Amino acid sequence: MRIHDLTTPALLVEAEALEHNLATMAEALPGPRLRPHMKAHKCTNLARRQVAHGHRRFTCATVREVEGLASAGLGEDLLLANEVLDCSRLGRLDARVTVAVDSIETIEAAARGGVPEVLIDVNVGLPRCGCAPDAAGALADRARAAGLEVRGVMGYEGHLMIVDDRVKQAEGVAQAMELLSAAHAQVGGEVISAGGTGSYDLNQLATEIQAGSYALMDTAYRGLGLPFRMATSLLATVVSASAAYAVADCGLKALGMDHGNPEIEGARVWFCSDEHVTFAAERAPAVGDRVRVWPAHIDPTVAYHETLHVVDGETVIESWPIDLRGW
Amino acid sequence: MRIHDLTTPALLVEAEALEHNLATMAEALPGPRLRPHMKAHKCTNLARRQVAHGHRRFTCATVREVEGLASAGLGEDLLLANEVLDCSRLGRLDARVTVAVDSIETIEAAARGGVPEVLIDVNVGLPRCGCAPDAAGALADRARAAGLEVRGVMGYEGHLMIVDDRVKQAEGVAQAMELLSAAHAQVGGEVISAGGTGSYDLNQLATEIQAGSYALMDTAYRGLGLPFRMATSLLATVVSASAAYAVADCGLKALGMDHGNPEIEGARVWFCSDEHVTFAAERAPAVGDRVRVWPAHIDPTVAYHETLHVVDGETVIESWPIDLRGW
Repeated sequence: MRIHDLTTPALLVEAEALEHNLATMAEALPGPRLRPHMKAHKCTNLARRQVAHGHRRFTCATVREVEGLASAGLGEDLLLANEVLDCSRLGRLDARVTVAVDSIETIEAAARGGVPEVLIDVNVGLPRCGCAPDAAGALADRARAAGLEVRGVMGYEGHLMIVDDRVKQAEGVAQAMELLSAAHAQVGGEVISAGGTGSYDLNQLATEIQAGSYALMDTAYRGLGLPFRMATSLLATVVSASAAYAVADCGLKALGMDHGNPEIEGARVWFCSDEHVTFAAERAPAVGDRVRVWPAHIDPTVAYHETLHVVDGETVIESWPIDLRGW
Repeated sequence: MRIHDLTTPALLVEAEALEHNLATMAEALPGPRLRPHMKAHKCTNLARRQVAHGHRRFTCATVREVEGLASAGLGEDLLLANEVLDCSRLGRLDARVTVAVDSIETIEAAARGGVPEVLIDVNVGLPRCGCAPDAAGALADRARAAGLEVRGVMGYEGHLMIVDDRVKQAEGVAQAMELLSAAHAQVGGEVISAGGTGSYDLNQLATEIQAGSYALMDTAYRGLGLPFRMATSLLATVVSASAAYAVADCGLKALGMDHGNPEIEGARVWFCSDEHVTFAAERAPAVGDRVRVWPAHIDPTVAYHETLHVVDGETVIESWPIDLRGW
């Protein structure tokens, strides 16, 4: 199949760039040093490619991601790096499942739901989930008293993923990891899980890095100068054109918009509406032309699409279902 | 089923508020005076409710929306209010299909794809699709020469949907409709299709209004003081709490973010991340509490969800698939 035959908007990943990204990360963080994050692509076929590169343990953000990997036979070691109050679906899986806890309630939910292993989630500076670092030891005791195995700690320095100055970023990551290290000293266990694509090469503490976006990439991460290539774009059709601007059929229902507008090469994007992007191009496109639209935030972009088409130039090699969307 | 039993985040619509909104609109714009826009809910079951209120003609933004209504037996008169270059799927449907055209290329696509009827789409001020008003007559001639039936014109005053001052909004709509009226004088035909939820009671020219958001509503439209109630919210679970803030499991993958953050009653929303909303509440919630999150833009929010749960207080009355997502 040729990409020209795809219905637009279509989510494309360049096979060579994807392979480059997977290989580059696997060389930097081989085997269990990386726990790829499913939230960035929600695609079982892509997870299999990560397994082929030596990464057999996965990070998930939703119960459905855990369920999907388990039923695909990729359940060797799955971490739900998120707090959940209903663990009943997790406890039924034929997989090794570990869940993050940061409160008595989430500990009780894990025990009640039959999830035997937990990580104590520690707040390392991002105001989101995670207990205060000095509360981690008491929570670990509580978890063990509830019959749970405490494998260690996690602490996501998400507020430090995209920082322009890499020296300042490294300092920030080091400070965040001092908090996690202090918590780990109270908690014990073999696992210190942290990090992401923006800090995969800066985080000196974590035993495993939870990066996900490195595989597909987006314009926000591109700005960091990491060795990962822009692999993923939306193929769109120019459906209307005037002297001043053109309109393509890739709108905000095909794009995560929380990081702002997408980019179009050789053009200035004016705005997105539900099904359209309006842009001014250096060379005015004709109605019917195809353009590539580069998303600003890959994770929510992927979640809008049913299919990820793996392409080599103009040829569609494979079409992978984005099968782990929803909750 | 009780809403407590739903997996969160869950998209809820209050049955009574939905009924109020549908009835209010049907009274203001009965029967063919409204052509409800499917893009706002993408849900065949909700379309059936609109039919029950007398609206049997629909507006669509995507080919899939048209296909879905046709296969549901709701194809009496479907307008694809969007330009498409491949009309082959539309031409095969057992339904009356009209497509918007604004160029020679889109006219040729309609003729080639077997779509017999068109509206000339006119730019009335929003820099998106639509021909220049003074080009409409020539395009209509061209369409007729290609064997197409030209039913009239459409022109969406989308830049005037959300304006704080309703007097200024009414003036703007009137000016936009002067452009459409001039184009209609060149084109002819019975149909003048325009308008939306923000201008449904201001647009004096259109023979039919393309409103969609009125059924479910969102915080952006709420600010206009229209007679429609906030019917739709996300049910979320508080998964983490500290002294300063709490975190619920309704993030930017459950919410269209292009109109900004959602609202939570009695709370200040700090930010959304992929699967979380961090907020500070007047009364600190406990882990496990449920909260209602009100979306800022309903259309892209719905497109993230598989199911719309119709509720009456704590009871889930029906669960409707959001079956016309994608393209």
